[in-house]
Amino acid sequence: MAQRKLDVVLDSVKRLQRMGATANLVNLLQKQHPADLAQLFSELSDKDRRAAFSVLAERNSRLAMEALSELGPEAGAAQLSDRSAEDIVRLTQELPTDDAAALIDYLPEELSAAVLELIQKRPAGGDVGELLEYPEQTAGRIMNPKVFALSEDMTAGEAITAVQSSRDVEVVFYLYIIDARRHLVGVASLRRLLLVPPSTPLKRIMTTDVISVRADMDQEEVARQVASYNLLAIPVVDEENKLAGVITVDDIIDVIKDEATEDVYRLAGVSSDDRVFTSPTESLRKRLPWLLVNLVTAFIAASIVSIFQGTIALLPILAVLMPVVAGMGGNAATQTLTVIVRGIALGELTWGNTRKALFKEALVGLGNGLACGLLGFVIVFALTRDSILGLVLGLAMLINMFVAATAGTVIPVILRALKVDPALASSVFITTLTDMFGFFSFLGLATLFIRYLHTGG
Amino acid sequence: MAQRKLDVVLDSVKRLQRMGATANLVNLLQKQHPADLAQLFSELSDKDRRAAFSVLAERNSRLAMEALSELGPEAGAAQLSDRSAEDIVRLTQELPTDDAAALIDYLPEELSAAVLELIQKRPAGGDVGELLEYPEQTAGRIMNPKVFALSEDMTAGEAITAVQSSRDVEVVFYLYIIDARRHLVGVASLRRLLLVPPSTPLKRIMTTDVISVRADMDQEEVARQVASYNLLAIPVVDEENKLAGVITVDDIIDVIKDEATEDVYRLAGVSSDDRVFTSPTESLRKRLPWLLVNLVTAFIAASIVSIFQGTIALLPILAVLMPVVAGMGGNAATQTLTVIVRGIALGELTWGNTRKALFKEALVGLGNGLACGLLGFVIVFALTRDSILGLVLGLAMLINMFVAATAGTVIPVILRALKVDPALASSVFITTLTDMFGFFSFLGLATLFIRYLHTGG
Repeated sequence: MAQRKLDVVLDSVKRLQRMGATANLVNLLQKQHPADLAQLFSELSDKDRRAAFSVLAERNSRLAMEALSELGPEAGAAQLSDRSAEDIVRLTQELPTDDAAALIDYLPEELSAAVLELIQKRPAGGDVGELLEYPEQTAGRIMNPKVFALSEDMTAGEAITAVQSSRDVEVVFYLYIIDARRHLVGVASLRRLLLVPPSTPLKRIMTTDVISVRADMDQEEVARQVASYNLLAIPVVDEENKLAGVITVDDIIDVIKDEATEDVYRLAGVSSDDRVFTSPTESLRKRLPWLLVNLVTAFIAASIVSIFQGTIALLPILAVLMPVVAGMGGNAATQTLTVIVRGIALGELTWGNTRKALFKEALVGLGNGLACGLLGFVIVFALTRDSILGLVLGLAMLINMFVAATAGTVIPVILRALKVDPALASSVFITTLTDMFGFFSFLGLATLFIRYLHTGG
Repeated sequence: MAQRKLDVVLDSVKRLQRMGATANLVNLLQKQHPADLAQLFSELSDKDRRAAFSVLAERNSRLAMEALSELGPEAGAAQLSDRSAEDIVRLTQELPTDDAAALIDYLPEELSAAVLELIQKRPAGGDVGELLEYPEQTAGRIMNPKVFALSEDMTAGEAITAVQSSRDVEVVFYLYIIDARRHLVGVASLRRLLLVPPSTPLKRIMTTDVISVRADMDQEEVARQVASYNLLAIPVVDEENKLAGVITVDDIIDVIKDEATEDVYRLAGVSSDDRVFTSPTESLRKRLPWLLVNLVTAFIAASIVSIFQGTIALLPILAVLMPVVAGMGGNAATQTLTVIVRGIALGELTWGNTRKALFKEALVGLGNGLACGLLGFVIVFALTRDSILGLVLGLAMLINMFVAATAGTVIPVILRALKVDPALASSVFITTLTDMFGFFSFLGLATLFIRYLHTGG
């Protein structure tokens, strides 16, 4: 919904809440799409959101729960956490199994256990429990186990009748076809069924080359498959190729967004579930370890400077210029690192073409180093009239930016080979390295050429 | 395709190419999915890729072009750039209009113009030209103008017949319904058509509340709508609400990936079309301006240090410790900035809740500053036995990390209000600011307390 329209509805909601006009409020809320309601909810204060959700849940629990699910599992679960387990079981039944499982998973531990225990006692309630048995971030965890499947012995006409009488199935666009023991054997589209005489056996018109994923596959890999084959849904099978569920493209979009956020975050040393409105203590708990690691490595880099305290005492201008050399190496390394890490995530950088990438980045680092070194020389000379000092800075910058580009390529590739997430660990390594190299090359060169530099004035 | 399977096919391709076994090579290539072919192409050397594409294009031009399109418009266009305009026109006709337009747009300027001129002369060739008239990154640019639409005067039975006889339409899942003047008036699903008697008028069963987007809408906003309403496709209309095209969810996935890459990249000062295998000169041209801006701001930050040259000459250990204070501010600011910028991109941070976010980040900054300041104090005291120096460092770090968190929230919000992309401009501002504040608070405090510090050893 456009921001302007949202603001109008938001104002009305707030007014009706103040007036206590519950019937009018529910009427207004009922007219909204679940996604719009989720946006409305996120703009309300905690208290107002709770109140609005409560009145809506009483009159139209499906819509209320769909809106909650759109809010995301973490925020949605927070909304439910003051309700009884019985209440939550009743409400989550309004949702598709995968969405229900995600919400329940984010409830406080005890409540989540109580809810699961109650659910297991219900017919078909086992589904939610089964989903939660798959490891996080796998296909099994995000699939919908209610999948529409047809028997391979059916005819096209029978299949159309089955589609007509199907209920409770999210959307039917691919029709998965199974054998008597539920093995996935084919797929057909509804349109294809309409194109053949009703008596045609499904076996004759189905595509047998079905693209499917295993339930234990990482969700990022599932997303890559759906994206690269342009699918609207992908069937999930167990280790015996039996159909276990289906993942639709809307869930894939959520995965792609989450994984992208994860990439951005890891490069900056932020945990992927640290969002704008995560509580301050939670954010602190997540960010502090990273900062403390950085603090220790910053002292390690600083120890390089301490070797050259004598030179600095003679020539304090070196202390002024040395952060420039270190910082530019950091900037250049961040650029390279980002391109390489994202290239790995998007599957563009493979083992086969790593050498080509390294060669390219080294060249770019050299070019950047030459240009920045030259400008650095000009600025230092203009400020100090000391051409040797300018030369020392320019040369150190060239060296450091070349090292930065090379390390920015090699380190993530090595971390990947060691099965460490390249985004997570690279940036702390790289900054330490470019700081150390920057300090060492600049102060080292200055010490070598100290007799040619304008000391003491 | 799994990496292992890919490697096997890749080896066979290389072997068949060496042997010159063209017929076998084409046979092997023909068996692959376009997405797998694209992956294969990206692993081949430039020369081998060109050769493989050529033989495939001769025997199965549709598959060859689909694979090229999957490679992405930039790499795909590079592959075509040594062919004649006539050849390119013939080949791009194998693709959906939106994909063809994207490829043509990335050709070298002259060739692109020649291709467009030839295309305009063909029946229905105008489509490609029209798409390219929409501004980049809008709905009009990425839509497919060949959209399957039904007249509102039809019956369900007539509609099913129309679906059966439709050709050249990507996939039919939503059936858009138009009036006599092509205004978009409704939508229905194929399944819904099957559920009613064939004589039912479409008007009676269609949903009139169609979610559509204007052709000039930004593609990021289109993606947000498709994602939040969980759509498989969204119709595109002109300013009079006439149906102009359709955008399918596979194109939306590409948009979401590209926008995520853009976010990661901008924070690091990398242009969004700078990829692993962009040519070195192109990458240099794109990254250098950002580095030069950073170089100038680094000198500005360094100028703060020059005020304190006298203090540093007395106490060179300050030069050792000052990058630690500045760097930790930068790290804390990057964390905050990333959360805020991503929060803006995901629509989580709105005008209404900015104050709440600022309060939270300030608290987190204070907490991080206290913890890091304390550890910094301990390390400095352990290394130098100078408790006042430790105190100066700890206090400066606390101040700088608090400023970093506050600025990391406020600056992107201000830039957004000024309609400047917060991701693009924030990081250079922030690093300069945290460097300046770090140097100033640390060296300033040291100068104030200089008489209590262990100078001269």
